[in-house]
Amino acid sequence: MKHGKFITLEGGEGAGKTTLIQGLTHALADRDIDVVVTREPGGTPGAELLRDLLLNGEVERWSSRTEALLMYAARVDHVERRIKPALSRGAWVLCDRFADSTRAYQGVAGGLEPAELADLQRFALGDFSADMTLIVDLDPEIGLKRTLQRGEKITRFEKFDTSYHRRLRQAFLDIASEDPERCVVLDGTQSQADVLAAAIAAVDARLTVGT
Amino acid sequence: MKHGKFITLEGGEGAGKTTLIQGLTHALADRDIDVVVTREPGGTPGAELLRDLLLNGEVERWSSRTEALLMYAARVDHVERRIKPALSRGAWVLCDRFADSTRAYQGVAGGLEPAELADLQRFALGDFSADMTLIVDLDPEIGLKRTLQRGEKITRFEKFDTSYHRRLRQAFLDIASEDPERCVVLDGTQSQADVLAAAIAAVDARLTVGT
Repeated sequence: MKHGKFITLEGGEGAGKTTLIQGLTHALADRDIDVVVTREPGGTPGAELLRDLLLNGEVERWSSRTEALLMYAARVDHVERRIKPALSRGAWVLCDRFADSTRAYQGVAGGLEPAELADLQRFALGDFSADMTLIVDLDPEIGLKRTLQRGEKITRFEKFDTSYHRRLRQAFLDIASEDPERCVVLDGTQSQADVLAAAIAAVDARLTVGT
Repeated sequence: MKHGKFITLEGGEGAGKTTLIQGLTHALADRDIDVVVTREPGGTPGAELLRDLLLNGEVERWSSRTEALLMYAARVDHVERRIKPALSRGAWVLCDRFADSTRAYQGVAGGLEPAELADLQRFALGDFSADMTLIVDLDPEIGLKRTLQRGEKITRFEKFDTSYHRRLRQAFLDIASEDPERCVVLDGTQSQADVLAAAIAAVDARLTVGT
């Protein structure tokens, strides 16, 4: 019984998802919407433990196939224990990364077949999916530079090479083309205010409170 | 390119798998077979970290679905990085628990459907499977009593109720009936020496060195 809306945000490293989520949270709260902000991998105590295993350590720590299973283990915990309960009580959930990230990172960039990842997703989530997905698109070199400038800790995925990050960008664009009903691509080279305005316009055009 | 043999050992808690593995290891080593002894969940550094997450904590820590994904994440790491390399160099691998444990624990006892677990297994392992599976069958009440007498640390799974452990026992017997080519059921009420003798006889009848 889903009453709220489930919005996921996707894109490469440093594309501006975190800032966008903050802006969206304020904009929705101003409309008296109960907003839950969360992220993947993580979002529950169990899933945050798995996040540590996934994001820390060396590039070769896990194969893409093991990574996909760990991502979905964290995702099931998150969906069952946090996202679905929030949606049931009518909250809107903004989630920094979701299943599209697994399709992009472990699938296209990591070499797993789309059909086998679809099987894994069906096992894990059944027919549960996002109502809307905002994809922030940005040249990966600019994104990685931004991440470094912010002085953030570099994760395992940021250590992968440039061609990996290029495949990632293309993967998100392809996901958007395949599922235009759900996905909106936002130009990450715009100012933060312009990205936010485009996101709010897309939300208003596609999602209505209470429907 | 598999040259060695992959033998898995299954059964409820306290059924006597550990003692049987020790006996089998000596018996095979006496025949100049290179034997690798390992266990699940675990067997590699990454999988042992997942073992800690799976076996410790409260019963409700993970749902059956999350557990199954974590088990397969650990299993893929173990198969890719330890079991397949050992088999390739011609070793025989004795593994304390494998995919049948997931079918029994998370499937039959935990409520996941056989068909969906089969999809998950196909994603994780493709067509890789054990050459032979020894199932040590024992009344779960006797098994749990043995575990307590040994003064071992109680895992999350031993904290589940008696009906869970009864479903588990039946699940292993059903797996053996469905796949008699691969599975041999050993009577765990016998002496350790008799269980070992029965296991060696089964190995001799079904597996031949170098074929």
